Amino acid sequence: MRNHDRITSVNKMSSFEVVNKTITFSTKGEIEFIDLSEKISEAVSNSKIQNGIVHVFAPHATGILVLTENDPALLNDIEELLESFAPMQKSYAHPSNAHSHLRSLMLPPDKTLPVVNGRVEFGTWQSLLFIETDVYPRKRTVIIQILGQT
Amino acid sequence: MRNHDRITSVNKMSSFEVVNKTITFSTKGEIEFIDLSEKISEAVSNSKIQNGIVHVFAPHATGILVLTENDPALLNDIEELLESFAPMQKSYAHPSNAHSHLRSLMLPPDKTLPVVNGRVEFGTWQSLLFIETDVYPRKRTVIIQILGQT
Amino acid sequence: MRNHDRITSVNKMSSFEVVNKTITFSTKGEIEFIDLSEKISEAVSNSKIQNGIVHVFAPHATGILVLTENDPALLNDIEELLESFAPMQKSYAHPSNAHSHLRSLMLPPDKTLPVVNGRVEFGTWQSLLFIETDVYPRKRTVIIQILGQT
Repeated sequence: MRNHDRITSVNKMSSFEVVNKTITFSTKGEIEFIDLSEKISEAVSNSKIQNGIVHVFAPHATGILVLTENDPALLNDIEELLESFAPMQKSYAHPSNAHSHLRSLMLPPDKTLPVVNGRVEFGTWQSLLFIETDVYPRKRTVIIQILGQT
Repeated sequence: MRNHDRITSVNKMSSFEVVNKTITFSTKGEIEFIDLSEKISEAVSNSKIQNGIVHVFAPHATGILVLTENDPALLNDIEELLESFAPMQKSYAHPSNAHSHLRSLMLPPDKTLPVVNGRVEFGTWQSLLFIETDVYPRKRTVIIQILGQT
Repeated sequence: MRNHDRITSVNKMSSFEVVNKTITFSTKGEIEFIDLSEKISEAVSNSKIQNGIVHVFAPHATGILVLTENDPALLNDIEELLESFAPMQKSYAHPSNAHSHLRSLMLPPDKTLPVVNGRVEFGTWQSLLFIETDVYPRKRTVIIQILGQT
């Protein structure tokens, strides 16, 4: 393991801020993928925060947030993965949508990304997707908290 | 995807703070569910922080934090899920409690939630539960860090 | 559940800062485990931040960050776990490295830990490991954001 480390110096004259943004949208029910990457990049850009973090959260017990390549073939593979660890047709104790809950539990709707030089540090092949796992169409909310120095 | 976005303006006269709280409790060994939602809401309320995040962390390699509906039937389903991806009776290289470690690895004890207008933004059906996965009774610690503007 | 709670008072004369550090290293391809715990402890120590959080992120769609005991036998068990939920030889829609992506999706490269009294609050048996899941040797980056009060 070779390390090539870099430390960014901190401008002590800058001020510390929190910027909050809420996005709402409708889904069609399971399974739907909604790419939030642009919305999040835009929120960070508008916040004027230069260095810090962006926290993305969906207040839903049957919703998922994942970091993944947004490629249609891979999204098919993700659907199969969800089905493999929490099958839709299996018998559960919780009625009607237990598989939706278990999928959200394994892939929780809670993600944090770094903000450096005013930009979200997504990797080249990383997008942030909301996955609807509930059985009915739903109205969904995503809360974005941006913390850091302007 | 229709968007109805909202941006909360930031009060620049407020001050930035970190409030730290540690909770300790005893568990009976696997599997036990401990609902931390009220303790976390109370810590955020006492912190006087209005906008920011609350980070919840258990410094344990055999503990879990999940966001889920706290319904006894669903907790049964969660126990079955844990057993399905890391069975207790399987043969492992690590002695005695490998399944406990693997469950904690898949469902790590690290969760962040948004704080908006002085409240934790739990969804209607979201509770934050600690799950004891170790084979013996343990004394457990949960560290709560609240960061944001008062 | 008995609680023995502790609240750390906040020094309001301290200043709020973000310190950013980037680590880069080379990997040999799947599966390789790289222990980042010391690097992260060192970054937090150098940052002079006393209370806050440290966010660790790898901008890679085929990389993993886990909290686990760094024991060679357990690392074998982790390899088997990765193989069990996303087998290398299975047929996938996404070409060549779908299993690498699915492993990174289930165990995302996004972890946050508390910083208390100038130290990262790792548990006794918790280490933070990067796991290379891609099929070829790669150059990898890990972004560390430390936020809090000095």
